[in-house]
Amino acid sequence: MAGYVPGEQPQETGWVKLNTNENPYPPSPRVVSAIRQMAEGRLNVYPDPDATGFRRVAAALHGVEPDWILPANGSDENLTIIMRSFCDAGQQIGYPYPSYVLYESLARIQDVGVHRLLLRPDWTWDQSRAAELRRSVRIFFVPNPNSPTGTSWSTDQLLELLPDDGVLVLDQAYADFSEQSQGAELLRDARFAGRLLMTRTFSKSYSLAGIRFGYCIAHPDLISGMRKVKDSYNCDAVSIAAATAALEDQQWMLANRDRILATRLRLATALPRHGFVVHPSQANFLWTTHASVSHRSIYERLKQQRVLVRYMKFPGAAADGGELDGLRITIGTEPEIERLLEVLPQAVEPRSG
Amino acid sequence: MAGYVPGEQPQETGWVKLNTNENPYPPSPRVVSAIRQMAEGRLNVYPDPDATGFRRVAAALHGVEPDWILPANGSDENLTIIMRSFCDAGQQIGYPYPSYVLYESLARIQDVGVHRLLLRPDWTWDQSRAAELRRSVRIFFVPNPNSPTGTSWSTDQLLELLPDDGVLVLDQAYADFSEQSQGAELLRDARFAGRLLMTRTFSKSYSLAGIRFGYCIAHPDLISGMRKVKDSYNCDAVSIAAATAALEDQQWMLANRDRILATRLRLATALPRHGFVVHPSQANFLWTTHASVSHRSIYERLKQQRVLVRYMKFPGAAADGGELDGLRITIGTEPEIERLLEVLPQAVEPRSG
Repeated sequence: MAGYVPGEQPQETGWVKLNTNENPYPPSPRVVSAIRQMAEGRLNVYPDPDATGFRRVAAALHGVEPDWILPANGSDENLTIIMRSFCDAGQQIGYPYPSYVLYESLARIQDVGVHRLLLRPDWTWDQSRAAELRRSVRIFFVPNPNSPTGTSWSTDQLLELLPDDGVLVLDQAYADFSEQSQGAELLRDARFAGRLLMTRTFSKSYSLAGIRFGYCIAHPDLISGMRKVKDSYNCDAVSIAAATAALEDQQWMLANRDRILATRLRLATALPRHGFVVHPSQANFLWTTHASVSHRSIYERLKQQRVLVRYMKFPGAAADGGELDGLRITIGTEPEIERLLEVLPQAVEPRSG
Repeated sequence: MAGYVPGEQPQETGWVKLNTNENPYPPSPRVVSAIRQMAEGRLNVYPDPDATGFRRVAAALHGVEPDWILPANGSDENLTIIMRSFCDAGQQIGYPYPSYVLYESLARIQDVGVHRLLLRPDWTWDQSRAAELRRSVRIFFVPNPNSPTGTSWSTDQLLELLPDDGVLVLDQAYADFSEQSQGAELLRDARFAGRLLMTRTFSKSYSLAGIRFGYCIAHPDLISGMRKVKDSYNCDAVSIAAATAALEDQQWMLANRDRILATRLRLATALPRHGFVVHPSQANFLWTTHASVSHRSIYERLKQQRVLVRYMKFPGAAADGGELDGLRITIGTEPEIERLLEVLPQAVEPRSG
């Protein structure tokens, strides 16, 4: 079995890194000071296994009680815990395809079967296929907004994916960049029958990919099942302090978000001038395809200029059943996007010879 | 299913905390400065998923190559990864009993069967029972030194536990406190047939329970299997930097270790004067039983004085098949042990009425 392969992480500086949807802006100064304070603190003792302080702050932000919150070592750990809590070996999960292929890797590790709900060229799905999957899967994972496309689906659309006997996981890694983000009030919506979970991360909107922190919001009955599966001390003291400080500075996060949305608009406007098709995005990245030049060669020519974007391919995802490929470009700072647009003309020139 | 229950973690100060085997001394000043430096660093980008720098330093320390090292979010995450990598649902593990009951919790989560290898009153095992387990289990977990007893087993004894078709995991959480610690050279010992793994943690000897970091040392064939199971970014940038700095200051760790061993000797000498039986320990804690007063009541009376020790009970572990219980006392600072010895006489007084 092949494991999930994360995006390239060059360890030297000098790269324009637009390949892993990181936030180009630094975290809140409050985060920096919280970490510095922890460095002087009692690191020799175990952290609070329940991250009580963090859960209190997150609960207040989302209008729920603290027992609706489960923090984890990154959103990926929450997804792992969800997989292990709600799906046994031999059972099945579903997810829209193309989207975050980690769901599939996690399922394979667990000997769990995988059903893909193929997205059509307009990123919607076939309702009868969805109805069929609802009957058989224990977990339906749906990133909203989706990656790599940036698509946001409505609550009515999501309702089509709630398993008859299982849970729906709304992976909201990019929700802070979306105009139609589903809030925690959805968890009390009777139509979801208490079987909805939302996951959030600090890696994107809060500029904290380096600290690994995420959390799940769900009814306490679901959370308490997950608590039995997680490692007792899954979150470290420094990360807990950093994440708490980040949540407490919403203004900082929202200001960076606004900058990113402005730059997204600029890039979405510029790309078509170079022959790209841009798909509407509600996230901090754009999915784009080119009419005449191979995506792999564009990716490689940009990389030669030390501009990293993500080349992605999805076997079986094209309308004709073949491979769908394209480029996913993270929204960087204005100067970073400037640099991309500078080297782009050369990258899309037809190859000589 | 009941999850693993970690030791109490009072969040307020003023407690003498001798219940979770934390190191009472602070981590190296190099660790503090590494964390402070990371706070100012690029926390908005993902950490190196391979923790390359850390692996290089750890490999040099143990005389292996970096591909023999797998870091994780605490030793507990390594144990979880080992369980998921080498044992499928329906298969079985073994472990000496009493020891770290987390192995059993992890197995239950994974629908894995559990065999206990009962320890005799002198903390050895029955060889014919061990031979029987070798034939059936996929993983044998052995903490060495053991908790709660502090016992250290010889390499020849450990050889009796290598599964015929599986791996032996040597959980070395307390190895730095032991005079007979097994080093990485054991991994190349032909008698273990390349099927031995060692796990290490920063929570005890390196005074870093707060950051959650541990690593596994094993042949690259085993490590590469585990890499497919772990979350891509399981270790955060701050913890990686802190752990690397900690390894680089061996002198600091060894000085604290020496202090702890001196205090251990003092406590081991004092306890019998209060009616306790002390078992020989190679770790940073003592397992002790009392001839006449109930262990739970001693624990509770100490707790009333804000001195926390660990009351532990193991059903089926006594020589007569009944419950074994006792107190596990972490070696704190000299003043902390002083305080324990101050309140102890009152705690072992026969109850009035």
